[in-house]
Amino acid sequence: MTVTGFPEPNPRPPICVLGLGLIGGSVLRAAIKSGRVGWGYNRSPEAVTCAQSEGFDAGTDLEEALRRAQQENALIVIAVPMPAVETMVQAISTYAPDCPITDVISVKVAVREVIYQYGLLKNYVGGHPMAGTSESGWSASSAELFTDAVWVIAADTDMNPAVWTQVAQLALDCGSVISPAQSEEHDAAVARISHLPHLLAETLALVGANGGDLALRLAAGSFRDGTRVASTAPELVRAMCEANSTALVAALNEAIDTLTSVRESLGSVQSAQNLVEQGHSARQRYETLTKTVEGIVGVDFNDPDWVWQLRTAGQTGAVIRSALPGPNNP
Amino acid sequence: MTVTGFPEPNPRPPICVLGLGLIGGSVLRAAIKSGRVGWGYNRSPEAVTCAQSEGFDAGTDLEEALRRAQQENALIVIAVPMPAVETMVQAISTYAPDCPITDVISVKVAVREVIYQYGLLKNYVGGHPMAGTSESGWSASSAELFTDAVWVIAADTDMNPAVWTQVAQLALDCGSVISPAQSEEHDAAVARISHLPHLLAETLALVGANGGDLALRLAAGSFRDGTRVASTAPELVRAMCEANSTALVAALNEAIDTLTSVRESLGSVQSAQNLVEQGHSARQRYETLTKTVEGIVGVDFNDPDWVWQLRTAGQTGAVIRSALPGPNNP
Repeated sequence: MTVTGFPEPNPRPPICVLGLGLIGGSVLRAAIKSGRVGWGYNRSPEAVTCAQSEGFDAGTDLEEALRRAQQENALIVIAVPMPAVETMVQAISTYAPDCPITDVISVKVAVREVIYQYGLLKNYVGGHPMAGTSESGWSASSAELFTDAVWVIAADTDMNPAVWTQVAQLALDCGSVISPAQSEEHDAAVARISHLPHLLAETLALVGANGGDLALRLAAGSFRDGTRVASTAPELVRAMCEANSTALVAALNEAIDTLTSVRESLGSVQSAQNLVEQGHSARQRYETLTKTVEGIVGVDFNDPDWVWQLRTAGQTGAVIRSALPGPNNP
Repeated sequence: MTVTGFPEPNPRPPICVLGLGLIGGSVLRAAIKSGRVGWGYNRSPEAVTCAQSEGFDAGTDLEEALRRAQQENALIVIAVPMPAVETMVQAISTYAPDCPITDVISVKVAVREVIYQYGLLKNYVGGHPMAGTSESGWSASSAELFTDAVWVIAADTDMNPAVWTQVAQLALDCGSVISPAQSEEHDAAVARISHLPHLLAETLALVGANGGDLALRLAAGSFRDGTRVASTAPELVRAMCEANSTALVAALNEAIDTLTSVRESLGSVQSAQNLVEQGHSARQRYETLTKTVEGIVGVDFNDPDWVWQLRTAGQTGAVIRSALPGPNNP
């Protein structure tokens, strides 16, 4: 793939973050730390009071936050849980219908559908930073949460390249690298590597505890690591998994088929050979991939195939590490 | 439970370790470090050469190691993979038929059956230290591997209490606490908290990698932790899991039923509520248990119910932390 020139938006627009939980709070902190202007909205006043006491510009008035965004042509970042997305999008369509919009929610197709219903698709480029902790809320947020993380940015058809570059620049300013992916591909991928791990962790915790206190007493590293994300607040796990049901059911089918197959070979010929060898190879492949990251050096937005270029590069695991001087930014 | 007096064997017998891999090597190192006398046998000369170069007493002559054990009434520690156990037991029955015997293998029923076939049950008390790394071999062994680990010691009927106290003292000398468990209960427990975690990790690695390089690029903490033990050498994972097929198939049945159930509720009503709430509670229970360890202060070996006392204490998650002066050890 030959791609050249990634136009850095100059000057950077301010950002307006809707939702100041772990992810939204961390976006606001990281963006401000990078030198940008930004403000945040949160429904409950606790996070707002905390943010204000740390010197951040935050409030509980959604209309006010969005009217200011419209006036200053801010990039709006939707950072609420999936069930609250429609309320945010409806308000954006009323008070800030011309602003560029992104989001940091863990599913992309469902968010895109809400955006589409409100006629805002032309302003929207979805995003998903692959970072988090088992803690939640503003108090757990950090300007460093996204450092060296992978931030997915949508590579869907009919996107506005001017919005795309603004969203990409925000991810880079937060310290992440960018993995471009079509929304459906993103949802299928995260079902495998983020939502399925949560359901397997919950399952392992449950089957372990069914063995009583003796079993839990004997649990060592493999159980501790394998159940770690079962500590995550149940409502967060449910919000992620339930918003991605279709892709997650497909990943679950594969997992159940795999486990059924090893159960049969263990029961009949006391062998776990196939699964263990394939699983070991798969983990090796993952380890190799994390050590070798191919970079996408730029995107030619004058090429009508720019989205296709991004998408095919993303499919190989390549990422964008930095903006380059582009046509509007010599 | 009222238990008093845990007879500390005095003087400590020397130990003869058969197999100088990660676990056997670490037992030899830890026992020597605690001030005991010990020597080791290993089939392949590489580990023996390394051990000798570090000043340990090691050799490749099994007959010689066992004749010396018989002469010095050493405690024999079987530390070879399950497929090599019968060869060791056969040699013990020939060259050291009067020695006390334990083992450090991850399944207990299968080892006990081999010991029984060779008429050595009266000398035997099984063990299993719940510690390990994804590395293997003498070069990965460490005198600190068992520090604060839980070391299972069998609580089966017809055990000789004099052997039991010798094996218990070895575990304590290596820095571990002791969890007493019947062999069948041990195998069922480790199927849930050690062998199932390995098969789930292999499954997650495989389903993740089936999503291609894009999916692996997006993988973050939940996938990394959930697949960590899939890095373990396949032959070690197979040896563990395949020797415990019966109990592991039962644990797999529970896991598959749980995953099938969440697949159905996600597919029909987009809900993961049951599993996520139950899994979260189970993990909380595990975390609470790791923080509160009830101690067993001693065992009255004059009580004909001593094994039953140990077993019921172990079922509640209680552990033995130290030996106490006993009848033969004022």
